[in-house]
Order: sequence, then structure tokens, then C-alpha cells
Amino acid sequence: MKLTVLGGGGVRVPAFIRGLISSGRATFDEICLFEPDELRRKTTGRLSVELAGALGRPGAVQLTADAEQAFASADFVFSTIRVGGDAARVVDEEVALRRGIVGQETTGPGGCAMALRTIPVLLGYCDILARCAPGAVLINFTNPVGVITQAISLRTSVRVVGVCDTPSSTLDRLAGFLGADRDQVSFSYGGLNHLGWITSFAVGGEERIGTLLDRYEELRRFDHAFAAFDPAQVRRLGAIPTEYVYYFYEPARYVAAVARAGASRGADVLRLNSELLAGIASAFDAGGVDDAWSAYSMLMGIRRDTYMRTDTDGDNAQAQARARRAAAGPVGPGGGRPSGYEGVALQVIDGLTARSPGEVIVNTRNGASLGFLDPDDVVEVPALVHGGGVSPLAIGQLPRSAIGLITQTKEYERELVEAAVTGDAGLAALALAVHPLVPGVTVAREMISEYRERHGPHLAYLR
Amino acid sequence: MKLTVLGGGGVRVPAFIRGLISSGRATFDEICLFEPDELRRKTTGRLSVELAGALGRPGAVQLTADAEQAFASADFVFSTIRVGGDAARVVDEEVALRRGIVGQETTGPGGCAMALRTIPVLLGYCDILARCAPGAVLINFTNPVGVITQAISLRTSVRVVGVCDTPSSTLDRLAGFLGADRDQVSFSYGGLNHLGWITSFAVGGEERIGTLLDRYEELRRFDHAFAAFDPAQVRRLGAIPTEYVYYFYEPARYVAAVARAGASRGADVLRLNSELLAGIASAFDAGGVDDAWSAYSMLMGIRRDTYMRTDTDGDNAQAQARARRAAAGPVGPGGGRPSGYEGVALQVIDGLTARSPGEVIVNTRNGASLGFLDPDDVVEVPALVHGGGVSPLAIGQLPRSAIGLITQTKEYERELVEAAVTGDAGLAALALAVHPLVPGVTVAREMISEYRERHGPHLAYLR
Amino acid sequence: MKLTVLGGGGVRVPAFIRGLISSGRATFDEICLFEPDELRRKTTGRLSVELAGALGRPGAVQLTADAEQAFASADFVFSTIRVGGDAARVVDEEVALRRGIVGQETTGPGGCAMALRTIPVLLGYCDILARCAPGAVLINFTNPVGVITQAISLRTSVRVVGVCDTPSSTLDRLAGFLGADRDQVSFSYGGLNHLGWITSFAVGGEERIGTLLDRYEELRRFDHAFAAFDPAQVRRLGAIPTEYVYYFYEPARYVAAVARAGASRGADVLRLNSELLAGIASAFDAGGVDDAWSAYSMLMGIRRDTYMRTDTDGDNAQAQARARRAAAGPVGPGGGRPSGYEGVALQVIDGLTARSPGEVIVNTRNGASLGFLDPDDVVEVPALVHGGGVSPLAIGQLPRSAIGLITQTKEYERELVEAAVTGDAGLAALALAVHPLVPGVTVAREMISEYRERHGPHLAYLR
Amino acid sequence: MKLTVLGGGGVRVPAFIRGLISSGRATFDEICLFEPDELRRKTTGRLSVELAGALGRPGAVQLTADAEQAFASADFVFSTIRVGGDAARVVDEEVALRRGIVGQETTGPGGCAMALRTIPVLLGYCDILARCAPGAVLINFTNPVGVITQAISLRTSVRVVGVCDTPSSTLDRLAGFLGADRDQVSFSYGGLNHLGWITSFAVGGEERIGTLLDRYEELRRFDHAFAAFDPAQVRRLGAIPTEYVYYFYEPARYVAAVARAGASRGADVLRLNSELLAGIASAFDAGGVDDAWSAYSMLMGIRRDTYMRTDTDGDNAQAQARARRAAAGPVGPGGGRPSGYEGVALQVIDGLTARSPGEVIVNTRNGASLGFLDPDDVVEVPALVHGGGVSPLAIGQLPRSAIGLITQTKEYERELVEAAVTGDAGLAALALAVHPLVPGVTVAREMISEYRERHGPHLAYLR
Repeated sequence: MKLTVLGGGGVRVPAFIRGLISSGRATFDEICLFEPDELRRKTTGRLSVELAGALGRPGAVQLTADAEQAFASADFVFSTIRVGGDAARVVDEEVALRRGIVGQETTGPGGCAMALRTIPVLLGYCDILARCAPGAVLINFTNPVGVITQAISLRTSVRVVGVCDTPSSTLDRLAGFLGADRDQVSFSYGGLNHLGWITSFAVGGEERIGTLLDRYEELRRFDHAFAAFDPAQVRRLGAIPTEYVYYFYEPARYVAAVARAGASRGADVLRLNSELLAGIASAFDAGGVDDAWSAYSMLMGIRRDTYMRTDTDGDNAQAQARARRAAAGPVGPGGGRPSGYEGVALQVIDGLTARSPGEVIVNTRNGASLGFLDPDDVVEVPALVHGGGVSPLAIGQLPRSAIGLITQTKEYERELVEAAVTGDAGLAALALAVHPLVPGVTVAREMISEYRERHGPHLAYLR
Repeated sequence: MKLTVLGGGGVRVPAFIRGLISSGRATFDEICLFEPDELRRKTTGRLSVELAGALGRPGAVQLTADAEQAFASADFVFSTIRVGGDAARVVDEEVALRRGIVGQETTGPGGCAMALRTIPVLLGYCDILARCAPGAVLINFTNPVGVITQAISLRTSVRVVGVCDTPSSTLDRLAGFLGADRDQVSFSYGGLNHLGWITSFAVGGEERIGTLLDRYEELRRFDHAFAAFDPAQVRRLGAIPTEYVYYFYEPARYVAAVARAGASRGADVLRLNSELLAGIASAFDAGGVDDAWSAYSMLMGIRRDTYMRTDTDGDNAQAQARARRAAAGPVGPGGGRPSGYEGVALQVIDGLTARSPGEVIVNTRNGASLGFLDPDDVVEVPALVHGGGVSPLAIGQLPRSAIGLITQTKEYERELVEAAVTGDAGLAALALAVHPLVPGVTVAREMISEYRERHGPHLAYLR
Repeated sequence: MKLTVLGGGGVRVPAFIRGLISSGRATFDEICLFEPDELRRKTTGRLSVELAGALGRPGAVQLTADAEQAFASADFVFSTIRVGGDAARVVDEEVALRRGIVGQETTGPGGCAMALRTIPVLLGYCDILARCAPGAVLINFTNPVGVITQAISLRTSVRVVGVCDTPSSTLDRLAGFLGADRDQVSFSYGGLNHLGWITSFAVGGEERIGTLLDRYEELRRFDHAFAAFDPAQVRRLGAIPTEYVYYFYEPARYVAAVARAGASRGADVLRLNSELLAGIASAFDAGGVDDAWSAYSMLMGIRRDTYMRTDTDGDNAQAQARARRAAAGPVGPGGGRPSGYEGVALQVIDGLTARSPGEVIVNTRNGASLGFLDPDDVVEVPALVHGGGVSPLAIGQLPRSAIGLITQTKEYERELVEAAVTGDAGLAALALAVHPLVPGVTVAREMISEYRERHGPHLAYLR
Repeated sequence: MKLTVLGGGGVRVPAFIRGLISSGRATFDEICLFEPDELRRKTTGRLSVELAGALGRPGAVQLTADAEQAFASADFVFSTIRVGGDAARVVDEEVALRRGIVGQETTGPGGCAMALRTIPVLLGYCDILARCAPGAVLINFTNPVGVITQAISLRTSVRVVGVCDTPSSTLDRLAGFLGADRDQVSFSYGGLNHLGWITSFAVGGEERIGTLLDRYEELRRFDHAFAAFDPAQVRRLGAIPTEYVYYFYEPARYVAAVARAGASRGADVLRLNSELLAGIASAFDAGGVDDAWSAYSMLMGIRRDTYMRTDTDGDNAQAQARARRAAAGPVGPGGGRPSGYEGVALQVIDGLTARSPGEVIVNTRNGASLGFLDPDDVVEVPALVHGGGVSPLAIGQLPRSAIGLITQTKEYERELVEAAVTGDAGLAALALAVHPLVPGVTVAREMISEYRERHGPHLAYLR
């Protein structure tokens, strides 16, 4: 079985490779990393290749800049590209933030600009994939996952499953909070990517959502993922929002927090990633794979520790994270298992290959899962993933205000895909104006115009 | 037949009385104006009473400060009160505007504060009405009409119909634009008060909505009600929004326009109304009903001419309006017919008394009219109004983004009614946070807190 | 204004003409009766023409066998044809009855055969009409009204409204039973033609359906239209079925009753109509229009008095009716007003010409009226009929078993229209097999085969 | 883990026990057969107990007539009782058949009578179970499975899953027909027990339902389960009905076939089962477990070979089956694995114990699976069965005529449960009248009356 990674020099890839091999879940005969950027091939790419060797599977990981070669005979493809790199993300966020609007990687104007840059590029790769490996399944992590998966699902013949670990990790945390065996948990979850709610959480057949809502203040202290929400609001809602809903529930607080912090998450990530690539490069110059891993894992740790801190607290908390990680000292490359969205992706692969069919929350064609959306829309819901494909579960009633937000956001997504596919700048602005976080069509036109100017060639196709 | 006007000293009442009598549509044996404010009784109230005499129906209009007397044996009651007066409206708008949020009489935080002040007072009047005239029909103009009608419909035994002329006047203008006979027009309209869309407009059985959308630029020049919308946006939508949708489609532009104008509409209206009452008082001091009417109609004309100008153009255009009206000279009390929402109210009365059953756009219990809302929700839709009551028409598909906005706004309205009825300040903030124009629960809490402080006794019941 | 009657020699036409002129509702400048059958032109046709003269409007009614001439410049067209005449109806009923299946004019296999004979003929007339009078409105009484109207609505450009007086006369009787002013009644009714239920009946805003159900035994004695239903069943249903629902609620009882009576209603009507035409012919031979009217009204009275007696009681009660009518003696042509479905048709005309817009129960395009059917399906619901067209009201929840029957029957109707339009005999049998009263596809194939054999040229187009 | 079998002397139990043990799937520490009937304990019961010994698990199977003992500490309970035994089934069928109505074990009046006998008895057992083993899961095979599961689900606190192998075995046959790997199949199935349709059948992601419909004539020859349906009807439907839909699609043909055969399936089964018990008894008298098994498997084979032959072909084909089985000679007790509904039940157990979560078609609470039914209704749909419980998949559009039949049949089921729980004979007749195969309320009253008379004590609770 061959796995190809589109965006194989991405910063998360070395950790994934290490987890995959260390945990023995590497059922792939071949892992091919496709990476067109030379610096990435020489740093994170090389680190992935050498990690395989260090962990006893030399040759298992290959690195290439040739897409056709990468796709040939692939069974599964991970897509994790970032068109325009981290620098483009900073622009995405700034254009919105300086107008007092949520500027964030995937939600609102930032996600819109990112999708506009990405869709044409990814649809191009899908053409090659459909030709080189027509039976392959594309597992999409490329953000904004919902829109991108909708574009591929509606506009190409490629079989696609969009993956994000936000809902499953939220469920894991809730199980942890209650001390429940995750296997005994039955839940209801539904929405769009980064806009989903948990409406039921039963343990061994007994409904516990009431307990979770009653104890929400405790839950906020238990885990940062719940910290940003107003307990009374959550209780009134009767459902637990996943963390990205924060941008919809607290846009003004987010904008104020970033202003206080002085820089958006994107700006921090840009700096951390530059430091990361430089650190790996020097480590390889000076030593070997162990040094490179140590530099890598230090910076990835800092990145993880500071996740969403700026957005909710107005302070990126990086200094403390650096101190803590430095005190802990270097870590060797052994150990670990794939977690995060790569972990979810492996569950999808285990299901589709019929090795271990089961329930996974994925971004997939709606069918009849959420009755208020179209069958062809891509939604984020639990599905049975098995040898025959992906079958969404029936989702019961969501909170009514959630239905309102989802209805409007999905309409934004449909219009955005249409704009990207037709290359229509005017339609892109009208699409953005439909987004719940955008205060009107006039400002939407201004932002699209500024994005076109600042993203140059990436948005030149829009007319 | 007896008509009682709750808020009988309101500034629109003299014009209504004059139109009613002049046009011969005054089928009421008795019109009783209930007005607790002395200044109003002495100015607008007196003007209404004397107008009736001047037009040949002396004694037809009575004025009282006693609610029980006003309601006794009433067949129909108009409700057009404003709790806190024009000054409260200025506060409603300011609290939102200084946070960069839409501050407007009926939409967003302003409408929320107004509803919170009004619901307990109006439910109190409903108690008296249910006792004194249990069969009476309450025709509600009190803003925000949708929320207030929902509160009365859900929480009292009073038969209520909410009335607003925005959709019908929009339809009239469209018919005028096309040169069509209004009797030949068949349309589809649906939504909530101040949040409705026209999705079909047929003349003599032939669909013309496509023509209207194609010629939208022309339509903008034809009438100010269409001027504020982006033609491309409207065309993409496939439906014509009614004018208050502007606040949802252009919140940032509205906030900027008010900043440019230097004062909100509420502030202008406060000044115009003070001037109006003072003008009537001096006219009565100096002369008689003709002078009072002349002063009145001049200032009402200026008010009408400047409607929505600040909000869309950033300039209240009052100077020009004053000049134009002054040049036109004084007008006598004869002529006119009830138009605006009083005209719609008379259509409702003609239907309910079986004199002339027909189609009227009203705010009424949804039933099965909009399938995505609850049967008990109050919606704004065309209905057959006849001797048996109000039967809503079946409304076909609205634009999907409209469904999103309506779903969310209706949830805000339900929660707001609950907050007002239970007197729960926390819930009021959570309700406000659900509104599509409010950027989050934190800022909603701040605004509710500030409203409670500044509106003193009117919101003292919230705890 | 010109009214054309397709099937102008139909037995109900003279009574309609008389009512129209006597009541002064004859706002038509010209009434043109189209009748291709010579015997009918010489009897009922001549009677209609001469009645106009006798009632002071000589020349108002014309008679022709030329369709183009009949349709030219028509504003409204009534369609009341019967392809194959009364004899075909007898066959329609027999083929089903001898298999122990409901054999009835409009419901079940009988209605299916009638629709198959009629649709091609009526679509042919619609072609001529669309050419000769493209703006005319076709008011369809031709049975089975629901299927026929669906065929015209879906497959031609002619504006069509299907009319049946069953629901409105049921409502009139209920008002009569309660002693209520019909103008004060508000009701909910929905379904398909001859398959509809009344789910709400309010007088002056007060719901009385509970009273009607509680007193259903009394209601059965009050009027024969309610007599056939089981009171406990109706109470459990929570709604009042209209009389044709009897064939769905009591098929076995109906089949047994016809067996007991020895002849179906169709056979009786065939004999009564032959007697009627012969009676008119002899009356004209022997005397004049007064004698002809007297013969006519005697036999029409017997026909009306024996309506549904066979089906529910197993005895056509004709002997008693004849005796009663004979004892009452001859009646002159004056007096009367259009009632029955012609009365409903005039309400439709009054609405569409904007003379008197109002609520009429019609067979029309569903739109969003019954949410569980398609927008393009023809349904029987109250609608606002006005200058702009026909706007269905929103119908709330019907009983769940009614939804089941309607869903299945409408699917039968859709398939039947498809079979008639494509001339596919196999599909006709499959359509018939979908009907709730038909016990399977094998017996449906047998019946279609027998109908094709016995109806000769009328069904020769099916292959 | 303890498994209790309610109806442990049922004729299928020995085969199940043998399959369970032979296949090594016997993960139960204890299997307790509850059987109140002495003859059954001495024949089929004893055979089950001794089979366990013969297959190397002596003591694994226990036999008791004490319900509390049987339920104590049970983890899973199979319910497979037949109140009134095979003789009652013969009455169930006769009462309907002699009126020309479908008389069948589970569908129509027969199923109604069976449910009325069974519900009070099984709810009584549920009371005991809820007390003795509150965490146990009841897996219900007791027919009619849909109604009985609905009664337990709505009216008791017992966790229940209804199981039938009709849909899964149909899917297996379709996979066999196409030569497809069952693991690669993705399908859509939905409906009620014995009233379900397969609307999609994809292999490796490729839709093949079109192929199956195109080749339906071949499919009919391939397997008897498809033989009874009209290929043109099935193609027009666009879905494959499961075999019991035959009674809805061909009631007249079924009634005629039974008349031709001279006896219903129930009468045959009554005779076969008497012969079976007698055969086992003599075998135990004369020899041992091997002889008893041989007699048992011979008669069970004849029973299986003649399944549905009478109903579709009008000939029970028993003579040929006996000859074939006799020629094949005796079979020893080894070999086999649980199939049929016991096989499905073990899949449910494997899922609920989290040993092997996966997709199983079950009768379970609807939730949002079939949007046109209530969340609380029991439906037959594919569900993810896992440690957390049973989560139904989202089912897309069913054929519209299927929706009609399901809507009406489910309403019959709801009303029937209500009648059984309240003991209301009148309501039982009204419920039966709602069933699509019952021609009216009058005949329904007659049949309920006759059932009460002939079933004596079993229906004495109805008043």
C-alpha cells in the first residue's frame, strides 16, 4: 500500500512519520513525500526520510518534487499544502483585523482568502491524481478543510474525505473529564468543519450532557479547549461548541485580544516556522538526525503550547512555553503515535481498507445527515467508515442558533467554491459578504480587492 | 364600532385621524385616544380631537388618560406606544454605535433595549384589555413589531395582528416601477418584520422578478427604498430585500455613515419631535387648529423626507428638506387618506369584519407558512384576512442566506421574549448575543449592563 | 367577457345557465356551449339556449360543434367532458367490482380508466385553446379532477384551476350544523380531490372541531354526507373526512353494498340520463322550454336525491325519490342560483377578475402548501384567488394516516399522467398498482388489459 | 457473559446452539434457556442441552421454567416466544383469508392478532427483566418484530434491539449475484420490519443498483427471494423490495395462491412442528442426541426448503422437499455457524460489547434516520452498533410509494401498541383499519371480534 503526502515538507510531517513507524501502525509499503519547495525538502523532508532510517525502516520514506511520480499507484493521498506559505496567512489575518473583523487562518475573511488561493491549485493536483491513480482516496487536511473538501467533492471525480481532529479531541477530553471509557461513549455531533456542536454525550447508554453543562465551569479549568466559552451561554444552548466556534461566539473579544497581544497567531507561527526550518538546517549541518529531531520537537512543542492563547487571552504566552521546554531538555526520536488529524486519517484508512470499520468524524457528502442542508454539501459529521465507503450517521436536532450559523456559513462556502472555480472576483466578494462574521458587502468588496493586490500571482486568476 | 389608540398622542396620530375622516373610511362610531402624557394630550392629542371637528365629525375623537375607560367595549385597539420616549431611543442607538455596532431603532441592540422596555408595559396593558374587552383585536405597530407581537401572541390571550407597511409599500413601488396595475400583481414575500424578502413578483400571471433584478440599477434611481443595496448582490440573491435588510447587509457602512453624519436618526427625530410639540403648542396659543396642522404637517414632512438618509448617505439632508418644505408653504387640514401602517391596519380591520376580505402582509402566528420556523413563531407573511381570522399563505423557498438570517434572528427574538417575561438580565445578554449583528457574548453583556444603567426605572425589573 | 363550456351539452349545464341568469351573476357577454354530440345539442343544449331566452337574455347562449370557434376570444373555459359517455363509466366500474375491488367513477380503477380515456382528448383541446385564446383560464370539472388538472398543469401552457364542491359543501353543512355564520368560519382543509380532510373549524376565532367530533353521531343524522363514517374512527383521526374518503375507509363495505343493490351508481346514472335526454326531446316535441325544463328538473332531482345511496346503503332508493318528486309536481324555469361546482367556479372567476378576491378551495399547483408533496403537484387546498392568480394557503399538519394515503395516491396520479402522456400500457398498470385500493400489480395488469379491450378506440393509443 | 433465551424451547434454538458452539463464537460463559412448556423442554430443550455436551461444552446450556432465575445477571436476552403457539398462527391467518384478505404470520390482520396476544406477555417479562437484570440488552426476534420492538422501546425501560435477517440476507444474495466481496459493499436500506427497500448498492464505491434492476429477470431465477416481484414494477420503483413486501405488492395473488394450495403456511408449519417434536421425542426414546439431531435437522430442512412456496406459487412443494432430504440421508451434529437472525443477533452483541463495532441492520429508535417518521418510532435501518450503543445511519430518499406505505403502516403500529397497552378492543379495530391491506373499518371490527372469540384467554384483556 502506498501513501503519498501532498505538502510532504510540512512541519507536522516528521512527527507523523515518527509516530507511524514507532507505533507499528505503518502498514504502508511506501510513503512518498511530495514537496516542491527546496528548503523544505532539505529540512523537514530530510528529517522525515532520516527518521524512518533511525527507527529501523530505511527507505520506507521517499521525497520528490515530481507530482506524477508521487501520485503514481498511490492508494491514499494526504493533502496538507499551504499555498503562499505562512507569510500569506499573516496577510490573510491582517487585512481583516485592521478593519476590526475576525482575521483568522480558517474562519472569516482569512479562510476565504486562503481558500481562494488554494482551490485552483488543489483542483489542479486532483486532475493529475485522477489520471495517475484513479482509485486513490484523497484525505484532505488542507485548510479551510470544509470549503476545500466541498470544492473537490463537487468539482472533481476524486474520492475525498476531509479530516480534522477538533471534534474527536473534544470528545476525548470530555471522556477524560468524566473518567469514562472512550469505547463506551455514544455521542451526537454535527455541523461544518470548525463550526460544530456536541449535542449528546452518553456513557454506557446513559446521557451525560446535562452533567457536562452543569459542571462547565470545572470543564473550563480542566482543559483550555473549553476555556473560552461563557458557561451560561453554553448551558442555554444545551450543547458543547467545539473550540473554533469561539470566533463566531466572541468576534469582538478575539479582535481585542489580538490587538492586546500585538500580533496574530499567524505572525507568531511564521516566526516559529522560520526558526524551525533554520534550526533543523543548522542541526543537520552540525550533527545528525537526533539533533535535528531535538530542534524540531522543541519548536513544535512551543507551537503547541501556545495554541489559541493569543486569541482568547490576548497574550501568546510564548516566553513561558520556551522556558518550560528548555528546562525539559532534548528528546530523542523514538516513541509516540500518530495523533491529531493524522491519527484521524489513519482511522479513515483502517475503515476504508476494511481492517477496522468504525465511526469517525469526517468531512463528507451530507446525504441525509443534516436535513436542513443539501445532499451534495460537505458536512462534518460522524460516519461509519468501512470497506464500502463513508456512510454518515443520522444527526438529530442541533440548537436553532447553530442551524442559523451553519445555514449561512454553508451558503458562503457554496458561493466561495463557485467564485474560485469560475475565477470571478465579484462573486468572491458577494460570497464573503454572506459570511456571518463579515459586516456587509461594501467591506467585503474592499477586502477582496486588498487580498488581490497583496497576494499578487496567487489571486491573479480572479477577474 | 370603537377604535382605541394606545399611544394616542403619538406624532402620526393626527395625520391618521385626518386621513380616516377625509377619506370617508371612518366606519368607527368612536375613536378613543389613550395618552398618559400631559404634554402630548395638549398638543398632538388636542390636534387630533380638533381635526375631527374641523373635518365635520366633532365628538368622534376622544382623549383620555384612563386605560380602562379607553379599552372598555373597544372592537379594535391600535398600539403605538414608545416606552421612554424619543430620548430612550437615542440611548438605544448610542450604546451600540460607540462600540462600532449597528445602533438602530428596531434592529440589533437598539431594538433589543426597546423591546426590553416595552414588553412588560404592553403585557400589562394586555391584561387590562383582556379584562375590559375580551373580544377586541389588538393591531400592533409598537416597535420592534415582530418581537412585541411574538410576546403578545405567546404570552397573552389577546388576539393580535402586527402591522408594518414596509413590505406592502415596497410592492407598491415595484408595481409603480413596472407601470403595473397593483390588482394584477401576485407576489411571494416572507420573513420577519424588518427582515423580509420578495422572491416572486408576477403581473397578470407572468413572472417579472427577473426583469426587476436585471433593471435593479434603474430601480435604485427610481426610489430611495432600493438605493442602498448592491445590485450585484441582489441579483445573486435572486430576491428583493425590503429596506431594513440594509442593516444586515451593510452594518459597517451604516456605522460609518452615522459617524460621518455626526448623529443618529434617533437624535434627529428627538429634536424634530420636540420642535413639533413646541410648534403645535405655540400654534394653538397663537391661533387655532389650522395653524397647528400647518406646523405639524411641515415638521412631519421634513421627518419623512429625511428618512434613512443618515443611515445610507451619512448626511441627514435636513437643511434641504426644510428649505423645500418652507418654499412649498402651509397646507390646510383637508384631504389625504390613511397610508403607511395605519392604511395596512385598516385593511386588516376591513378583512376581519368581513367587509372586504383579502390579502394583507401581517405579523402573525406562523402555522405552516415558513416551514423552517415553529408553528407558534410570529412571522411576517401575506395572509388572507377574513371574517374567520388570519390565514397565512404558503411561502415557497426563500434564499438560503435569508433562511440563515431569519433562523438566527428568530431565535434571538424567542430568547428575548423569554428574558423580558422572566426579568432575567443574564438571559437578555445571551439573547442579544444570538443576534446576527452582535459580535459576541462578552460585548452583549457589556451593552445590556450599560442599557440597565442608563435606562434606569424602565429596565429595573431585570435582575 | 366570454365563457366557453367544453361539454356544453352536459346534463348539469341547463341548471347552471338558469342559475347564472336568474341570480344576476351573469357577467358574461357571451356563453358559448361547445358540444360535438348531436343528440345532446338537440336536448340539453337546446334547453340551455332557450332557457336564456325565457329568462330574458335571448342570444346570450350559443351552441356550436366547432372547437376553434368555441375557444376564440374566450376569457374562461369550463371543462366538463365525459369521454365515452355514461356507458364507459359503467364499464369502468364493472371491471373492478367483479374482482371485489372498489369500482367507482373517480376513485380506484374506475377513475384510472376514465383518466386514461380523458387525458389525451383534453390535452388536445388544450392545444387548440393555447392557440385560440392563450390568456384564457381553464376551470376544470372533468373528472377525476385531481389527475386531469395535474396533467394539464404539468403538460400544457394553459392556466388551469380544478374545481370540486365537495369540501366547500362539507364546510357549509358543518356551519349549518353549528348554526354558525359562514363568514365567521375559519378552517383548515387539505388533501387531493376526493381525498381531503378538515382538520380545523373555528367560528369567530374559537376552535370547534372538538365539538363536531364529539357530536359526530348527531352530525351523521344531520346530513347524509357524514353518515357513512364510523364516529369512533373519525374521533380517533381528529379530523373530518370529506365524503369520497368513504371509498378509502370502507372499500369492502362499498363493494358489498353495490352487490346488494345489484347495480352500481354508474348503471343508474346511465339509465337516468338516457331517460333525461329522451324526456327533454319529447317535451320539446310536444311543448316548449317550460315542459323541457320540467322534465329535466324532475330527473335531475331524482338523480341528486339518490346520490351515494347505493354505495353506503346497498339500495339506490330511486323508487322513493321518484314518488317524492312526482308528488311535488312540475317546477318552472325561474329562480335558483349557481351552486355545486359551478358555484365554486364563479367564485374563482370573481377572484381572478379582481371583482371579489377571496378564499376558495381549488385544485392547484401545490407550491409550499402541503410540505410532504412536490411544489409541482396539484393539490386540493384553500387558496386566495385574486387578480394576480391563485395563492395557496399554508396547511398545517394533517392526520398521519391521511398523509400516508395522500402520498401514495399522488404517486399513483403522477405515474398515471406519465402513462397517459407516453401512451404506455405497461406503465398504466404499474400506476394503477400504486393506488391504495388496488390489491397488487398482477390484478392491475389484468384490469388494464380488460379496460383496453372493452374501451376499444378510446384506449387504442396505449401500447 | 450470560445469554438468556426467552422461548428457549423454540425449534430454531438447537440449530443456534450447535452453530454457536461449533463455530467457536460462543463467548458466553452461560446460556440459559427459559421454556415454560414441558413438552418443549423435553424435546428441543433437551436437544440443545445435550448438543452442548456432544460438542464439548457440557454444562454450558441450562434449561429452566423459572423466569427470574433465567433473567438473573443476564447480559443479553434473546426473545423468541410465540404466545398461543403454532395453532394460534393458523387462526390468525384463517380469519383474514376467508374474507379474501392477506392472512399471514406478521403482515396484516394476522400480525395484528399476534401482536395483540404478545405485547402484554412480553411487557410482563420486561418488568421482570428490568428488576432482575437492569443493564441487560433484549434482542428481540419475537414477531411481528417491528411492532413488538416499538412497544418495548416506548413502554418499558429495557434496552431493546429488534433483529431480523431479511434485509441482510437479501444484501448477501445481491452480493452473491454480482460476485462481489461483501466487505466492499455499501448500500442504502430503509423502512420498517418486513417492509423495507434497498435503494443503493455500491461495490468498491461504484453504484450497481442500475445493473441489478436491469438484470432483475436473471435475479429472479438466481434466488427465490426475488422471484415474486414484477421486474417492470421493480425497475420503475428504482429500488429492490425485500421479500415480505410481496404481501403489499401482490395481496390478491397471495390470497389466490393460498386458496390454490389449500392451506396457509401456518397450517403447514403447525404440522411440521408437531412432527418435529414427536420425532425428537421418539429419537431420544430410541437412541441419543445424534438420532434426535438427525430427526430435527431433517424436518427443519423441509421447513426451510418450502419457505414462501405456498404464498407465491400456490403449492407448498413439501413432497419434493421430503424426497430430497430423505435421499440426502442423516446429518451429524457437528459443523455450522449461527446464521439467520441469530447470526445478526451475534453481530449486535459483538458491536455492543465493543469487540467488533460495525454496521448492522436493526430495528431501533428512529432518531433522525427516516425524516418522515417520529424520532421515537422504531424503524428498520442500518446502524452503527458499538460500545456506546446503536446509532442509525442517515437514510436518503426512499421511493415515494414506499414512503406512503411506511407512513400508513407505522401509524397502524403506533395505534396497535396503544390498543394493546390500554386493552382497548375498539381501538384495536381502528388500528387494524389503518393497515394498508385491510379494506375498511367495518371489516376490521368484524375480524377483531372474531379474533377475540377464537383466541379466548389470550385476548381476554381487550375490552
